[in-house]
Amino acid sequence: MLIRGVFGVVDEIKVAPMHKLIKRAGADRVSEESAVALGKALEDIGVKVAREALGYAKHAGRKTVKAKDIEIAAQKVLER
Amino acid sequence: MLIRGVFGVVDEIKVAPMHKLIKRAGADRVSEESAVALGKALEDIGVKVAREALGYAKHAGRKTVKAKDIEIAAQKVLER
Repeated sequence: MLIRGVFGVVDEIKVAPMHKLIKRAGADRVSEESAVALGKALEDIGVKVAREALGYAKHAGRKTVKAKDIEIAAQKVLER
Repeated sequence: MLIRGVFGVVDEIKVAPMHKLIKRAGADRVSEESAVALGKALEDIGVKVAREALGYAKHAGRKTVKAKDIEIAAQKVLER
């Protein structure tokens, strides 16, 4: 996480909620490193979803990203 | 978010970091509803990634999910 910080990618998502998500997926035991890894992964996926959503907003002639833009972009990621 | 709460799906990811991720994607203006939508979407995607990771851990004869399991599962989602 330090190295990512050096290169300007701030870690936004907290680790504690990641433990809960992995437990919710059915895991009995969750390592700290896996919770950190999930937070990093969801940040990357989140930016990817947001970029696609931004494209939809621009295509619709809007400068503001709306919930429906995010939902469509996220659905694409979930369905793939 | 209330309805999701009623059905037992707790909202783990905070909204403020979602604003930052959408800005990082290049958006000038971010609606509150889009930040909430991204948080919900990343929770769903996070559980999906964690489920796949759990499968990899079990396949390797482990009960503990490791970072490498998460990374491989997340990479699949990002590449698709």
